[in-house]
Amino acid sequence: MTETIKNLGEQGLLKIFRQYCSEVVGDDAAPMGGTLTEHQMVVTTDMLVDGVHFSDRTTSPEDVGWRAAAVNLSDLAAMGAKPWGVVMSVGLPSDTTVAWIEGVYRGFSECLRTYGTELVGGDTVRSPIRTLSVTAFGQVPQNQIIQRHTARVGDAIVMTGLHGLSKAGLELLLHENLQEKLLANLKIGNCILSGKALEQAICRYHQRPTPRFDAIALLHKLLKQHNHLKDFPISGMDSSDGLADAIAQICRASQVGAKIFWRSLPIHRAIRILAGDRALDWVLYGGEDFELVLCMPFKLAEPFVHQLPNSAIIGEIIEGNQIDGLEMRSAFQHFAT
Amino acid sequence: MTETIKNLGEQGLLKIFRQYCSEVVGDDAAPMGGTLTEHQMVVTTDMLVDGVHFSDRTTSPEDVGWRAAAVNLSDLAAMGAKPWGVVMSVGLPSDTTVAWIEGVYRGFSECLRTYGTELVGGDTVRSPIRTLSVTAFGQVPQNQIIQRHTARVGDAIVMTGLHGLSKAGLELLLHENLQEKLLANLKIGNCILSGKALEQAICRYHQRPTPRFDAIALLHKLLKQHNHLKDFPISGMDSSDGLADAIAQICRASQVGAKIFWRSLPIHRAIRILAGDRALDWVLYGGEDFELVLCMPFKLAEPFVHQLPNSAIIGEIIEGNQIDGLEMRSAFQHFAT
Repeated sequence: MTETIKNLGEQGLLKIFRQYCSEVVGDDAAPMGGTLTEHQMVVTTDMLVDGVHFSDRTTSPEDVGWRAAAVNLSDLAAMGAKPWGVVMSVGLPSDTTVAWIEGVYRGFSECLRTYGTELVGGDTVRSPIRTLSVTAFGQVPQNQIIQRHTARVGDAIVMTGLHGLSKAGLELLLHENLQEKLLANLKIGNCILSGKALEQAICRYHQRPTPRFDAIALLHKLLKQHNHLKDFPISGMDSSDGLADAIAQICRASQVGAKIFWRSLPIHRAIRILAGDRALDWVLYGGEDFELVLCMPFKLAEPFVHQLPNSAIIGEIIEGNQIDGLEMRSAFQHFAT
Repeated sequence: MTETIKNLGEQGLLKIFRQYCSEVVGDDAAPMGGTLTEHQMVVTTDMLVDGVHFSDRTTSPEDVGWRAAAVNLSDLAAMGAKPWGVVMSVGLPSDTTVAWIEGVYRGFSECLRTYGTELVGGDTVRSPIRTLSVTAFGQVPQNQIIQRHTARVGDAIVMTGLHGLSKAGLELLLHENLQEKLLANLKIGNCILSGKALEQAICRYHQRPTPRFDAIALLHKLLKQHNHLKDFPISGMDSSDGLADAIAQICRASQVGAKIFWRSLPIHRAIRILAGDRALDWVLYGGEDFELVLCMPFKLAEPFVHQLPNSAIIGEIIEGNQIDGLEMRSAFQHFAT
């Protein structure tokens, strides 16, 4: 018989939780190590609900856990912060299998470890629907917070990686016929990766997003080289709700417009194959790529994209409130359906 | 027509959220003011689910919000920490009324304001079940964290207030015949409060629990007077899962036993009326009183209970692992039903 949370009981569930938790859980709150001298704390929180933000159909429990961590860590990276600690509460129906929640904790911890942080506390409750709620704290040196309201006319708009691949991964996981379409079309072309390996790599974009702390580290290196640590001419956010949404939000918050370099906007070949006429739509509105969209002077942006693979300068901040050709709709309207 | 979240849309919901949120919400994470010099951060998180932790039958939306805040703040108080900031994520079905979620935010903010803190961020998502997930951070001077594993033989066991009243309040809200029973019995006796006022006061114990920061402030005053700030001879936790559970957990974590002063254990007259033979059960296992159970030397405990109304010394920490006469079962087994 498959073991469920109901058989396990609360104490059993707590035992599993503790295996993945750094602190001696047992007090009412978890003490956090470290101090904040000359640093500021930032905090972010996300709730993930079964059937809304994840599904057994497309996501293994390990990937659900990884994503729950990565989504929050990406928010910290987007602020220029280093992760300091994370808490996760889970709401579970009694018939949830133990294997599922263990998988979630495993993937969650794996992601935290990869980016140098850990689970410091949490809560486990009964709920009719599987729900994960994650809060992550980070620290960032005073005056080096990346925010979205400080973009300036003349800044380059930089994206740290390709967009549309998370959407492509989701579509591949949902529709078998697309897998065939991809493989058939790749055979015609000249591909370094085998078709199957490419397909898996694309699915991983959806299942295992990568918080871009590497891009922040490179940024700090360049800011130091260019003596820009004090004035810190960087603004931006992550592209969790889509590339178009990120550009639009930065422009709105900074009261500026943007010119997009449409010809320089990279579109992965697999997206052209899978999406056909809608390739640009996937890139702009696909969402959940968890790249960073950063605005900075061109003289910083050029060495930045030179040193960061798959990054690109995709536009420029201009006066006004227009974004040329970009449809100003949000990719996700969570309550519309 | 009653306005629902579906009519309102995500942007509309965010607008409501922002009214109650201190920071300019809009970045990926919220910056936190203040620094931690010579303080340690503690963090606590709780998830509350409709039908499990609250119900329209017994709790108004304002009270749901208050409780969601109070439960977390109580955990901070139990660690000896002062609140620093709070985030709340909400998961809502599309047919949730706007009035409900506004009421929740209103009660939530009211509680935060009362205890000198504020909402600094959050998330709003679609979910089939109304779910609130709160994470609260606090700060506590280095070496003055109250934990449950440091109780020492010879310590007095102190409770900061009466127990069983939250259970009494819940029962009064659920069963009309109990209201009549309470009123009828009070008429015979000699009561200062009118029966109806007493009934409402008891219901409020359930609906609006009070984090005991006042008890912590008094404790620090006495520690200073007695030159105990450095060795800090205090252990304890809150009694959210019941008085018996708190004593048992402290004993287990500290590897000690306890002797309970059964004759000194105060039981409110209304509990005797409502619970009859089961009055002691309500006091020990009722749960959700959110008082503090603290262990400390008698010479501190005595002035402490003298200065804190309704507090009492209810036992003593002894050697061994037995708690005399106390059934070592937890009041809540969240996944048992």
